[in-house]
Amino acid sequence: GLLQSGWDAGAGWICVLFVGLAAGATAGIIDIGARWMSDLKTGVCADRFWLDREHCCWSSNDTFYKDDDCKAWTKWPWMLNYYNSSSFLFLFLEWIFYIGWAVAMSTLAVLFVKIFAPYACGSGIPEIKCILSGFVIRGYLGKWTFIIKSVGLILSSASGLSLGKEGPMVHLACCIGNIFSYLFPKYGLNEAKKREILSASAAAGVSVAFGAPIGGVLFSLEEASYYFPLKTMWRSFFCALVAGIILRFVNPFGSNQTSLFHVDYMMKWTFIELVPFALLGLFGGIIGSLFIFANIRWSRFRKNSKTLGGNPIYEVMIITFITAAISYFNPFTRKSALSMIQQLFDRCEDQVDEDSLCDQNKALSIAFGQLLWALIFKFIITIFTFGIKVPCGLFVPSIGMGAIAGRILGITVDQIFRAVQATPGHSEYFTCQIGKDCVMPGLYAMVGAAAVLGGVTRMTVSLVVIMFELTGSLEFIVPTMVATMFSKWIGDGISKMGIYEAHIELNGYPFLDSKGEYPYSTVASQVMRPSIHRQVADEMSMSDLRELKNELSVITESGMSLGDLESLLRQTDFNGFPVVVSQNSMHLVGFITRRDILLALHTARKTQPYVVTNSIAYFSDGVPDSVPGGPAPLRLRKILDMAPMTVTDQTPMETVIDMFRKLGLRQVLVTKNGKVLGIITKKDILQFMRNKNSQ
Amino acid sequence: GLLQSGWDAGAGWICVLFVGLAAGATAGIIDIGARWMSDLKTGVCADRFWLDREHCCWSSNDTFYKDDDCKAWTKWPWMLNYYNSSSFLFLFLEWIFYIGWAVAMSTLAVLFVKIFAPYACGSGIPEIKCILSGFVIRGYLGKWTFIIKSVGLILSSASGLSLGKEGPMVHLACCIGNIFSYLFPKYGLNEAKKREILSASAAAGVSVAFGAPIGGVLFSLEEASYYFPLKTMWRSFFCALVAGIILRFVNPFGSNQTSLFHVDYMMKWTFIELVPFALLGLFGGIIGSLFIFANIRWSRFRKNSKTLGGNPIYEVMIITFITAAISYFNPFTRKSALSMIQQLFDRCEDQVDEDSLCDQNKALSIAFGQLLWALIFKFIITIFTFGIKVPCGLFVPSIGMGAIAGRILGITVDQIFRAVQATPGHSEYFTCQIGKDCVMPGLYAMVGAAAVLGGVTRMTVSLVVIMFELTGSLEFIVPTMVATMFSKWIGDGISKMGIYEAHIELNGYPFLDSKGEYPYSTVASQVMRPSIHRQVADEMSMSDLRELKNELSVITESGMSLGDLESLLRQTDFNGFPVVVSQNSMHLVGFITRRDILLALHTARKTQPYVVTNSIAYFSDGVPDSVPGGPAPLRLRKILDMAPMTVTDQTPMETVIDMFRKLGLRQVLVTKNGKVLGIITKKDILQFMRNKNSQ
Repeated sequence: GLLQSGWDAGAGWICVLFVGLAAGATAGIIDIGARWMSDLKTGVCADRFWLDREHCCWSSNDTFYKDDDCKAWTKWPWMLNYYNSSSFLFLFLEWIFYIGWAVAMSTLAVLFVKIFAPYACGSGIPEIKCILSGFVIRGYLGKWTFIIKSVGLILSSASGLSLGKEGPMVHLACCIGNIFSYLFPKYGLNEAKKREILSASAAAGVSVAFGAPIGGVLFSLEEASYYFPLKTMWRSFFCALVAGIILRFVNPFGSNQTSLFHVDYMMKWTFIELVPFALLGLFGGIIGSLFIFANIRWSRFRKNSKTLGGNPIYEVMIITFITAAISYFNPFTRKSALSMIQQLFDRCEDQVDEDSLCDQNKALSIAFGQLLWALIFKFIITIFTFGIKVPCGLFVPSIGMGAIAGRILGITVDQIFRAVQATPGHSEYFTCQIGKDCVMPGLYAMVGAAAVLGGVTRMTVSLVVIMFELTGSLEFIVPTMVATMFSKWIGDGISKMGIYEAHIELNGYPFLDSKGEYPYSTVASQVMRPSIHRQVADEMSMSDLRELKNELSVITESGMSLGDLESLLRQTDFNGFPVVVSQNSMHLVGFITRRDILLALHTARKTQPYVVTNSIAYFSDGVPDSVPGGPAPLRLRKILDMAPMTVTDQTPMETVIDMFRKLGLRQVLVTKNGKVLGIITKKDILQFMRNKNSQ
Repeated sequence: GLLQSGWDAGAGWICVLFVGLAAGATAGIIDIGARWMSDLKTGVCADRFWLDREHCCWSSNDTFYKDDDCKAWTKWPWMLNYYNSSSFLFLFLEWIFYIGWAVAMSTLAVLFVKIFAPYACGSGIPEIKCILSGFVIRGYLGKWTFIIKSVGLILSSASGLSLGKEGPMVHLACCIGNIFSYLFPKYGLNEAKKREILSASAAAGVSVAFGAPIGGVLFSLEEASYYFPLKTMWRSFFCALVAGIILRFVNPFGSNQTSLFHVDYMMKWTFIELVPFALLGLFGGIIGSLFIFANIRWSRFRKNSKTLGGNPIYEVMIITFITAAISYFNPFTRKSALSMIQQLFDRCEDQVDEDSLCDQNKALSIAFGQLLWALIFKFIITIFTFGIKVPCGLFVPSIGMGAIAGRILGITVDQIFRAVQATPGHSEYFTCQIGKDCVMPGLYAMVGAAAVLGGVTRMTVSLVVIMFELTGSLEFIVPTMVATMFSKWIGDGISKMGIYEAHIELNGYPFLDSKGEYPYSTVASQVMRPSIHRQVADEMSMSDLRELKNELSVITESGMSLGDLESLLRQTDFNGFPVVVSQNSMHLVGFITRRDILLALHTARKTQPYVVTNSIAYFSDGVPDSVPGGPAPLRLRKILDMAPMTVTDQTPMETVIDMFRKLGLRQVLVTKNGKVLGIITKKDILQFMRNKNSQ
């Protein structure tokens, strides 16, 4: 008894513990793998091929290790005996190898996905949202999806495509959650219970993707989950924390920081700078909406076009080729997105270093041009990349675009201030040292990153918390928040939907958004099927058979024979039927699903030989003893759902939508004076909301 | 149009902006006031009486300022010309003044509360919880409550009673939210909308109380709010942040830290130390439950006892006298709770300072004894203090108890490790330097604080986040979390209710807990009134009039006269009646509240002279033209609620409770085959849950 209840209470915790452990380990392995493969594009470690460039150069004990100067790291042209690194042929060979590896990796990724697990492509967050709202997609969180997505993620992110590992990491964590939940029957066999584990898994996914356990919980709460009770929150936090600790233990980045872009210095800002930060927010909202619009257009085109939709492998190869060929020539796009972001977030140190962004001379203007070019290129290529059939996330590309835009604005503001300060008589305006104390381009990059990510995903609190955990400082909360707020307002003004909601709509998933408000003046009877107007029309032209079909199909609790039921099932395609006392009274008794009734009739036909087509089916309590001579009756009360949800015909749709959302209903019956009038399904609700929105 | 909708969308933001500004300013003023008045117990600043001791000594430019050595700070005995600080008379006078001021302040506080605003007493969090769940307490969030609670809070916290300012700060912030919401008709006139503002205010309250904006939002989500949509979350965050920034601007503590107990050094911990941390959690769970049990027992005794309950002023005076008289003799209880906690959280610096806790010699064992004594005293006195009629919170006393307990355990573990290390042959067990790198009593104090606070309030995620924002470091998240988890598990094992839920139950507020699960096998028809069994009994003994009254009182949609209605209202005390087609069919048409019907009848009697007692009231659409000779009919359809919530008699109570919780219902009608059988109100649900829990 006590032991049983203890196990019962503990099972959930043990399950999320396992999920956390596995998610942390998986993320570590993927990080290490992606790093190594990404470096493979330029060369290989001479004597220990399993090391990436950084570790290779570390272990080779070169006296001074800087970007390219490491003997142990064998560049590909060296293999072919070209050593003159300034010759055209050398550079050309390097370029060719770079492209070749990139295309090979991404092609391998798309092949894996296509052959073994078609669900492993994309970011997976739209689907996770639907699954957490109650939609079931068989196999979407299965072990094959997990394996292929892990491998594919390493390959695709190493190939240098403009995509991130972070979204797919959430999908992977949910796969882990799903797989482990089968170890605990309480969770594995109950979809609602399983979703609690999945919510916790999503939190763990973000936790390992960004090193942000609290941000992960808030992401799961704000973005991913539909129903998030407090118990789940606490478990999610535990799961996210375990995953984070494990990832730190694996230590894939060779540093002791859990945060991805650790900023271990103070960045001060003045109140006047909130104006450029708000401008960044504005920019983020616009560019985010633009991105969503363009990406959805392209995705729809891909869906409808046979040439494009039917040849995902060629598409991936072409995109990779273009990405690799072009990004090779820009130092900001050539390096991995993560190190680019780190560079943009960093402030300029006192010592003049090699960073072109910190040089106040000519190098800066070159870098400025490169940044501008990188921004445009990233924006365009990401539109075409997000949606190709490899595992690909959108967080890092968005953060990257935002960081570039922010840094550009930061450099501009910095230069303006310097120019003003240099003008005689204006130097006393500034009590702070520009670039050291007050105008810090690195901070602008951070704020820009938050703004664009906000514009694309429309996250709010979780975004701010993730950004602050990402950089490890509470100092930036106000600038980040201002930018996120403006980005959200502008973005929502242009178009209500974030990228995930837009993809959900594109794919036609039955997802009921739990956000917005719908103060409609419509009542239930205007939305239900069959519609009132049509019924009135019926009365006027009784001969119109097509219209008659739109009448409510009901089952009476007694009096219908097996044959009647079977023909009803054949003639209609509804998923369920209200059961009423009689066709005349239409008083509601219960509800029965098509599935249950089919199963029951099938079983009866098979196991009860005396049940024939003429047998009367009884859903009521009082079944008469079999009439002598007549066929045996069939008792079906136990498959009847005696507690269907009902609303009256005058119930406002606002309340009905609220019920669907909060109670997770699939259908509700509409009654008037105790009589069944019609039915409203989740599909009707979605249709209704779409119509209202487009008006 | 556009302007209107823009204002509509912006009003909420502007409202929470104001709330944040006001909450931050209020908190700053209260902090400064409480600080000054608290120091008043020992003396006054010689030339500038408005300065507290610290600022007085700073501004007097004493070369070396240490605890007591400041000439500008005039102790009370000096005023009476006693200067020999070691004489018995001096100490006695100091003691008398200390007690006198304390009693005077708390008496003033209780007088203010009793005369001007009785709602200003206590912490207010239980009531806020109820208000946010839909319960209306008139005047609880009014401006008088706000003013008196602010003043009373300064007085009561300065008097040295074992209470905190943090809980009442949440109440004050909610008052501010309520007051400001009246500036915006959209929020002021709609209770549901107003609750959104109140949720944000609660977050701001915690934000200013602890300097923890994220913790505030999570507190509002986890503990205070009942319904917390995402939009509210985002606004709460904004509100909490604004309040935090303003508080930082006011800078009441004279430091630039927003966090209350800033710990600006690394505290390392080893995995083996998770065992003592878990022990602290265990202790926290036990002591928390014990506290709740004792406090509730005492509160119930106070409620029922005339002597005690009728004389709140004497009670406060006695408690203050005892607290002041005893706590004066212990250095840890004499100083304010906040500085005691700060001292306990601090680690021992390298230089040997005056802190007795860091001395490895005799002073430590004396301090150990004092800590033990302080823990016992605090525990006992807080039981009697929480619930007296002054503004008083529970956060700081809980954190204080926990910090003492944690420090005691920390010192013990520290001494054991040192002893083991000193034993020959064991020194190589430790690679770290005890007290410097690994066993840090300050960390134990923090973990203990979280454990006890968790045991008392049963908060989880918000507690961990508050603790981490309180100390400003992510390092302690794992130890804190382990302790909180154990504390929660143990506490919930002993008794399910936290202190706030316990007080809600004690006061009999209609609060439907949104947490736990209730997998009951009961169905709606077993809970509804009138109960089935009684109906059956009725049929057997039709003469039993008392039983007959338990029949469902319904109104028919037509056919009842004004006289019938009025007698029905007189004979019953139900708050609402189902309206049915006829007494025979009992088919549901709608629902009408007693209030509405009374109002309608009253108005009709007054304004429509032709309506007489015999007039027939029609709730249906088709009202017959007035019968010639008969009295004029009365049309009441428009006061009828046409969309009452219904469930069938076979609906599991789990679903019904879910509906009440998530949809915020007040009652639900139970139907069977379209006929009304009975009604379930929120009270019935609460009664049912209580019975189930006590079984």
